[in-house]
Amino acid sequence: APQLDSYFRQVDALSENFIERLRKAVGIPSVSADDERRGDVVKMGKFLASELESLGAEVQLRPLGKQPHKEYLELPPVVIARYGNDTKKRTILVYGHYDVQPALKEDGWATAPFELTVDSKGRMYGRGSTDDKGPVLGWLNAIEAHKKAGVDFPVNLLMCFEGMEEYGSEGLDDFINDEAKKFFKDADAVCISDNYWLGTEKPCLTYGLRGCNYYSIEISGPGQDLHSGVFGGTAQEPMTDLVRVMASLVDKDGNILIPGIKEQVAPLTDDEKSLYGDIAFTMDNLYESLGSQTSIFSDKERTLMGRWRYPSLSLHGVEGAFSAPGAKTVIPAKVIGKFSIRTVPNMEIEAVNKAVFAHIDKTFAALNSKNKCNAKLQHAGKWWVASPKHWNFTAAAKAVEHVWGVKPDLTREGGSIPVTLTFEQATGKNVLLLPMGSSTDAAHSINEKLDRRNYIEGIKLLGAYLHYVGEEPMKET
Amino acid sequence: APQLDSYFRQVDALSENFIERLRKAVGIPSVSADDERRGDVVKMGKFLASELESLGAEVQLRPLGKQPHKEYLELPPVVIARYGNDTKKRTILVYGHYDVQPALKEDGWATAPFELTVDSKGRMYGRGSTDDKGPVLGWLNAIEAHKKAGVDFPVNLLMCFEGMEEYGSEGLDDFINDEAKKFFKDADAVCISDNYWLGTEKPCLTYGLRGCNYYSIEISGPGQDLHSGVFGGTAQEPMTDLVRVMASLVDKDGNILIPGIKEQVAPLTDDEKSLYGDIAFTMDNLYESLGSQTSIFSDKERTLMGRWRYPSLSLHGVEGAFSAPGAKTVIPAKVIGKFSIRTVPNMEIEAVNKAVFAHIDKTFAALNSKNKCNAKLQHAGKWWVASPKHWNFTAAAKAVEHVWGVKPDLTREGGSIPVTLTFEQATGKNVLLLPMGSSTDAAHSINEKLDRRNYIEGIKLLGAYLHYVGEEPMKET
Ligand SMILES: [Zn+2]
Ligand SMILES: [Zn+2]
Ligand SMILES: [Zn+2]
Ligand SMILES: [Zn+2]
Repeated sequence: APQLDSYFRQVDALSENFIERLRKAVGIPSVSADDERRGDVVKMGKFLASELESLGAEVQLRPLGKQPHKEYLELPPVVIARYGNDTKKRTILVYGHYDVQPALKEDGWATAPFELTVDSKGRMYGRGSTDDKGPVLGWLNAIEAHKKAGVDFPVNLLMCFEGMEEYGSEGLDDFINDEAKKFFKDADAVCISDNYWLGTEKPCLTYGLRGCNYYSIEISGPGQDLHSGVFGGTAQEPMTDLVRVMASLVDKDGNILIPGIKEQVAPLTDDEKSLYGDIAFTMDNLYESLGSQTSIFSDKERTLMGRWRYPSLSLHGVEGAFSAPGAKTVIPAKVIGKFSIRTVPNMEIEAVNKAVFAHIDKTFAALNSKNKCNAKLQHAGKWWVASPKHWNFTAAAKAVEHVWGVKPDLTREGGSIPVTLTFEQATGKNVLLLPMGSSTDAAHSINEKLDRRNYIEGIKLLGAYLHYVGEEPMKET
Repeated sequence: APQLDSYFRQVDALSENFIERLRKAVGIPSVSADDERRGDVVKMGKFLASELESLGAEVQLRPLGKQPHKEYLELPPVVIARYGNDTKKRTILVYGHYDVQPALKEDGWATAPFELTVDSKGRMYGRGSTDDKGPVLGWLNAIEAHKKAGVDFPVNLLMCFEGMEEYGSEGLDDFINDEAKKFFKDADAVCISDNYWLGTEKPCLTYGLRGCNYYSIEISGPGQDLHSGVFGGTAQEPMTDLVRVMASLVDKDGNILIPGIKEQVAPLTDDEKSLYGDIAFTMDNLYESLGSQTSIFSDKERTLMGRWRYPSLSLHGVEGAFSAPGAKTVIPAKVIGKFSIRTVPNMEIEAVNKAVFAHIDKTFAALNSKNKCNAKLQHAGKWWVASPKHWNFTAAAKAVEHVWGVKPDLTREGGSIPVTLTFEQATGKNVLLLPMGSSTDAAHSINEKLDRRNYIEGIKLLGAYLHYVGEEPMKET
């Protein structure tokens, strides 16, 4: 496509401008978790809005009201925008977030976290560079390069950029549901760029996420914490019960021991099984990210299935017991074990709850303890799996092949990005996760970075994706 | 004994003075755990020294050097004193401590913690009233009442009052060992008043304490904490192993499941068994102090044996795991389980260690996990049991019967008072624990108190004890 060639040349020509735009964005410390930074979050939202306006988009800053549990704080606005209004074109709704994780130089950053610092290898360090300011600016940069190249923009673009993602996306679900049939009503498909390649060399398209049911098991007995010298050997101790109940949930190879869970998992077909071998991933990739060789499986295929398509159960810790360094001779009166189950098709939140509570009740009852046990669901989010055969994915796959010269891996992720499911359910449209950064970008850690190459080629990719979307036959797959 | 009658009358006559002395002592906030209170701890030591001097005792304030790990602080001095130097009399060494636990009105005290406040029922509230300023002043008051009554003091009294007991008795063991053949060399027996009656009505003499071996089990695998979405189902999780190892140690009825522990416990003789029935203690006493009915046993005898003469194992908590309120989806990379075993005759520290480490190693090996397990002894203190047939105890028993009109219970305690064993081993003499306060005194809690009756009758008891010591035949039992 000759249009794409001139678009790509324009992206290369503007690359220093695009890095400058990212530098400005990283320079605004829009940390949504810090009360004192709320002004900077708002400033970042306004910066986006003004950039979008100068590119010719219609922009609105939409308030979300007071922050729950922090009524003295106003939530930062959602920046929504529309670029293009041509009913003959497809409309793509894109999502990103302009807030960032906290970052302090003292945490161990090699550079000032809120100053974009580019090293000789083109690694662009700075909080938010890859999560998620780089990808968000990618859409703006794609618009600018089209304009300056004089290339017609291939779709109508709806944008939704929020400022509270790193603090639970407070207020966003209701907003999306409210706007699904209003501002977002023309959307033909959704694209989210807020995750990462599986490795460093090969791009991927992501079509699935696991869900998460998070539980607490509270076991209590004595009226207050006891001294083990005085009461050890005469009182039934809640911790003794709790470790037994927790040990009944999962074994060292991650097998969930709760009856009725495995039965809910969609069976592995030969078709699906054959997909894992081709994914660009090695056990060394896993060992490097684990920082050890303590993996459950020794082969890549079962490791990827363990992460993506099977449920897992992790024991997170115990609240109420002695947890500090040193030696304290306490018998804790009330202890709360925490664990969660990562869920996959076809597990249902309620069916999982039922199996979990039945198992805990039965296991605790079998102990015949005088203590009390009370298990609760703390929160739940469902898994999400999209069809990678939808034109939204095939367009993105063609774009990857054009820009990177390679067919993308089709991947899932083990974690959850709750907004994905919200968009799918609110719009009823296909959602694509199209990552820009790589597995080494250290989102949420010290020394977060985005590689120059991933940023610049990523801008080309976003534009190319929109072109191929425009070329896909106008019927739903 | 007519001497005792006039001594008792003098104690009654001086009782307001004695309460005034306690009021002055409680007024000095000698909190050994607070750096900023160190001056007050020293002030309290000097107050004791000056009171003792004005009573005619020879007194020394002995420095203990810098405080370990807080080299900017000088340890408070040990106050040692001698009253009487008659080679025809027995010499009794008494120990107490003049420092106190922290206390703030904001913690929930009904009265100012460092102002002695006496209510209409004679309850004297104030930090240190019962632990251990009341008992320490008891010895001074006994000297004063003898002098003013013109009654010959029946023994030579050696005193050792420390100022760091509530912060681990830093430096004291070495001091006692150094002085055993010097300042303390004449001691014929030792008496410590720093524990409590089992209930509120019946005095007791305490002849045994359990020891404590405190352990940590460290299980580690990944190089750093992991996100359960990304790594759940692919990494062997240290918490999963830890709860299994912890669950293998003890059951809900407190039975220690480590092979080779029970075998070390001295068998229960019919003789010993018969002692428990008479002890003034009820299951309601236990339920009240537990704040629940979640006891292991439903009868008093087995409850007392469980506390005093059998070992127990308590799981204290987990370091390194998620322990805060809320829901965090972390896979902890390194977790450290803490537990301790209360030890009894004839368990040896080393033999217990051997059984514990062998069991943990075997249990962890059976899991066949790729993680690493490393169990350690954090600290150990041996149990102590004295002969209650020694003249030191028979003298105290006669004193109790004389003052309180009842034979004392002979009790042990489930916890440890390490200085007891130090004195026994350093001097080679019999040690008696002779409590002044009652089970409701709330040492270490808010609203600590000492009943007026326990204080005044306690002063009589200490004097009477010394008289009966003087009358016991001059041969060792
Ligand atoms: Zn993000
Ligand atoms: Zn993030
Ligand atoms: Zn004490
Ligand atoms: Zn104390």
